[in-house]
Amino acid sequence: MSEAIRRTWLPYLNDDVPAGCATPAETAAFELALGCQRLGAPVPGLREDAALGEGYHIYTESGRPVIAGGSAGLLYGAYAYLEALAAGEDAPEGVQKPFYGLRMIDCWDNADGSIERGYSGRSLWFEGGRFQWDPRRIRQLGRMLGSAGVNALCVNNVNVHAEAEDLIEDAGLTELARFADALRPFGVKLMVSVNFAQPMRHGIPTADPLDEAVQQWWAERADAVWRAVPDLAGFLVKADSEHRPGPFTYGRSHAEGANMLARAVAPHGGVLVWRAFVYNCMQDWRDKKTDRPMAAYETYAPLDGQFDGNVILQVKNGPYDFQVREPVSPTLLAMPNTNLALEWQLAQEYTGHQIDLYAMNPMWHEMTADLPPETVMAVAAVSNLGRDDNFTGHPFAAANLYGYGRYAWNPRVDPEAVLRRWARLTYALPGAQEDALVAMLMNSRSVYEKYTAPLGLCWMVNPEGHYGPSPYGYEFSLWGTYNRAGRDAVGIDRTAAGTGYVLQYPEALRRRYETPEACPDDLLLFFHRLRYDYRMRDGRTLIQRIYDDHFEGAEQTEAMARTLEGLSLPEPDKTEALERMRLQIRDAREWRDVINTFFRRLSGVDDEKTRTIYD
Amino acid sequence: MSEAIRRTWLPYLNDDVPAGCATPAETAAFELALGCQRLGAPVPGLREDAALGEGYHIYTESGRPVIAGGSAGLLYGAYAYLEALAAGEDAPEGVQKPFYGLRMIDCWDNADGSIERGYSGRSLWFEGGRFQWDPRRIRQLGRMLGSAGVNALCVNNVNVHAEAEDLIEDAGLTELARFADALRPFGVKLMVSVNFAQPMRHGIPTADPLDEAVQQWWAERADAVWRAVPDLAGFLVKADSEHRPGPFTYGRSHAEGANMLARAVAPHGGVLVWRAFVYNCMQDWRDKKTDRPMAAYETYAPLDGQFDGNVILQVKNGPYDFQVREPVSPTLLAMPNTNLALEWQLAQEYTGHQIDLYAMNPMWHEMTADLPPETVMAVAAVSNLGRDDNFTGHPFAAANLYGYGRYAWNPRVDPEAVLRRWARLTYALPGAQEDALVAMLMNSRSVYEKYTAPLGLCWMVNPEGHYGPSPYGYEFSLWGTYNRAGRDAVGIDRTAAGTGYVLQYPEALRRRYETPEACPDDLLLFFHRLRYDYRMRDGRTLIQRIYDDHFEGAEQTEAMARTLEGLSLPEPDKTEALERMRLQIRDAREWRDVINTFFRRLSGVDDEKTRTIYD
Repeated sequence: MSEAIRRTWLPYLNDDVPAGCATPAETAAFELALGCQRLGAPVPGLREDAALGEGYHIYTESGRPVIAGGSAGLLYGAYAYLEALAAGEDAPEGVQKPFYGLRMIDCWDNADGSIERGYSGRSLWFEGGRFQWDPRRIRQLGRMLGSAGVNALCVNNVNVHAEAEDLIEDAGLTELARFADALRPFGVKLMVSVNFAQPMRHGIPTADPLDEAVQQWWAERADAVWRAVPDLAGFLVKADSEHRPGPFTYGRSHAEGANMLARAVAPHGGVLVWRAFVYNCMQDWRDKKTDRPMAAYETYAPLDGQFDGNVILQVKNGPYDFQVREPVSPTLLAMPNTNLALEWQLAQEYTGHQIDLYAMNPMWHEMTADLPPETVMAVAAVSNLGRDDNFTGHPFAAANLYGYGRYAWNPRVDPEAVLRRWARLTYALPGAQEDALVAMLMNSRSVYEKYTAPLGLCWMVNPEGHYGPSPYGYEFSLWGTYNRAGRDAVGIDRTAAGTGYVLQYPEALRRRYETPEACPDDLLLFFHRLRYDYRMRDGRTLIQRIYDDHFEGAEQTEAMARTLEGLSLPEPDKTEALERMRLQIRDAREWRDVINTFFRRLSGVDDEKTRTIYD
Repeated sequence: MSEAIRRTWLPYLNDDVPAGCATPAETAAFELALGCQRLGAPVPGLREDAALGEGYHIYTESGRPVIAGGSAGLLYGAYAYLEALAAGEDAPEGVQKPFYGLRMIDCWDNADGSIERGYSGRSLWFEGGRFQWDPRRIRQLGRMLGSAGVNALCVNNVNVHAEAEDLIEDAGLTELARFADALRPFGVKLMVSVNFAQPMRHGIPTADPLDEAVQQWWAERADAVWRAVPDLAGFLVKADSEHRPGPFTYGRSHAEGANMLARAVAPHGGVLVWRAFVYNCMQDWRDKKTDRPMAAYETYAPLDGQFDGNVILQVKNGPYDFQVREPVSPTLLAMPNTNLALEWQLAQEYTGHQIDLYAMNPMWHEMTADLPPETVMAVAAVSNLGRDDNFTGHPFAAANLYGYGRYAWNPRVDPEAVLRRWARLTYALPGAQEDALVAMLMNSRSVYEKYTAPLGLCWMVNPEGHYGPSPYGYEFSLWGTYNRAGRDAVGIDRTAAGTGYVLQYPEALRRRYETPEACPDDLLLFFHRLRYDYRMRDGRTLIQRIYDDHFEGAEQTEAMARTLEGLSLPEPDKTEALERMRLQIRDAREWRDVINTFFRRLSGVDDEKTRTIYD
């Protein structure tokens, strides 16, 4: 493993974290001592107050700053104090507590060291079928997570491959406990993804959740797991999804499946996080009645109120799968009597593989308008972390990890303020440069959106690897991912007259989406099938808008490159960012040309501005 | 590894082959003793006559059959004698000798036990980075190869991954020699694929073929290899192809590269087989001047006459890559002063993965009209063998291995006679059933062709795995594989007015291909870009012909299933063949619907016969 440890967003904390800290409070004391010395700031007093929990209270007493909080609260207060000073602001005062009590990072790390949809190198903690890590890097990781405010890390892929099942077997528990010890001083609890059918590995002929032997196996297993890791946060399960086993095999509902596991972990205070990513991944493209975005709602909405109190149903932000733009998942709005977690993806699977710039806070913030943050009780994000020196592949992708933590702490936080804080802490650029960097990040999703799939269509990406354009690559597949682009029209009619998907929404959203006139442009083709000569609000035709967006998006990458070149970034960040930007420009042109050519071949319509569209 | 050994085409020889035979002559004696006893036939006398080499002479002396031949000739004569009798024919008489002296099977087996483009299970001889095999199965394999008349087996993938480089390192030579010992009694010599850059593994900073240290390394390596395996047939090289290293790196020609290696192996009587599969695999789809089928000719034709006498340039049958239908590669017709080998592919990479029926002898025979067999001096075929009980995945795919051997022995052999002989030896069906099976095999390529890519377009296959339809899957890729299907027309103009590819052909073929009027229907879109309303010879429009072919092809799979059900095949062959036929029917429907929908979306033209084409 690399010995290098790169700066993240706390440049004055690039030093190693000592191995001696056992609790967040101890880490807080260490970080304050180190940080305040570097910043020339007074070292606050620490006052442990368990009642404050993860919250903290910063105040002045006899002219001296004091941070009060539970053990984790002290750590969060310490980081808040240090960050503010490092950013050149006044020391914060007052009480702060996190909006969400559970702020998860889901890692898709496999026991063999690979990472599913990982774009930052191999796993930081798995290799060769077992835990294996560099303690120094894991402490640095703990600092990153703790300072961002993340408090739970699910260590293994939701697709639990055989070796990862060992994690909760007796042989694996010692290692799991050691890893929990390594992250505990940073306020980070572990979670484990489990295989619903794991009892069948032990001679039990079924995984039926109503089978007593199955229930007993899980209860005993949970006993053993929590004996080894008493503060384990819980289990995470992907069931009946993309060929994973689940309760459907036994004719049981997902409430029955989840509750069975929840009862096994309940005595230990554990939660059971159950992913709602269920759909027919063997769909026939000829079938126009089945509509993949409708699947989660159909499966889960009828179960509202049936889940145990320690079950958390984890629902992706949109009804598809982490596309560049999706409407809010209607499932999230249909289950008032269920504990819900909102799942985002930091790993840039469909959003540029941590090559293309794509800052996510604006997108997260945007959704609070349609999904009041109170609707869910927890948030999760698929990790963008890996063994690369800078942890996140693209040095700027660290902003998404940091920003996710800030958003999970306060979902209404201003995204621009978050990105500015990250930029300032990480690079301390001159003012105009900082403005330029922040503006570029704020605009980065829009740029990416313009040169990729148009107007909410989704899924024009290469099916092999999910990078680069392939406009018909998913069109005749089993995945339920169709654009139905034809000679005259494109898109899927999801109104009442079509698949009826729009009827899954509460009235205000239904009204917004059910007519092309009311529907926002950027989701127009998600909800409607429209002719290429459809007139948009601004008078352009649909096809002209598609061309314009693609030309503009590709042009904007070149403008971003010029901005980037003007920034006084340290090495190797500058070289790495420029090198990735070079790829982004190349790939944006590829997207532009392929998508424009595709639609011109189908529609026969030329660009009004006579720009080059290839035959 | 499986203990089962399944019948191939010599049912009376399903018994084990003894381990004691050391030479083909000894194997011949064993096979005759065993086979004649089973058949109740007189055991011929054997008379070794080295002058006959691989040829044999069968005659009657004093009322007793005699087989004369060199050691391998005796074995081929013995199999010919036994096969004729087993097929119910008279014992053959007269002299026979193989048309091609080198009849190769190229195995794409990796040292880790996987097989690139393998559809019959894992490698029969590699596992875990080294040779590892079941002697009983390898002897059965030897019998299959020997009785088909194959005399050279290249043991490892042309894409030489690191572990496979060990094959010719000192540590690997002992195992290579043992494997050579195992196949020698069947007249099969080994070949090895080598990595052009292998000297760089040994501290030599270059692989430049004009560098003396490189030349010396290869000469010493060849000395060591032939010391271990004195009858090794030679080395096989894939250079400067699909990211493999090669002489282009050093500004050298492929003649310089091949000759350097040829001189290393020449003192040992070895040949150097050099694959001509060179093209730009990083092409820009926007570039309409570069035309992948032109690449091999451009690279090699100017080098005609420059290759050493023990170099064999191995050229794929068509200018693309083993598509269901391609014209003959013009490279094969442009190098009269070069030793050429013609390469086919038994592995059904683009032709149905040994799920779909696809008998190849008719295709091979067809090409003799355009490529006189004398044009090449050797033949090679990519293996369809693997560890499956029946060796070839589909039980009928064995006909392609057997048929290849017969074709390599006599390229003008009647394909129907070959398939009938294979069917009779393998299944001994009642006459009408045998007729039905042979007719089905004879027609199988036409059926596959109809429901897949139309009229010589090629490359409408799924890029991930090369199975199933994806009409635009290769359209915007780097591989040089475009159909340019648009709203009004489809295909690439390869005439003099287009890419000029047709100019690479000798006059007769050029005339045949250069106008749509003269061009055979089944290659029409390979050579021409035509409107959907183009009138074919039979009066149909091009688009109607595309629809008709796809409906017919899919229907014909159902007829094949009925034929198959009526055959008295032994188990497990019948169940396996029916199961694969069920998949073939499903997949033919998928091809039909996807391709028809694709072209209807683009063209807007309905089917004249109002059959179902989905939107």
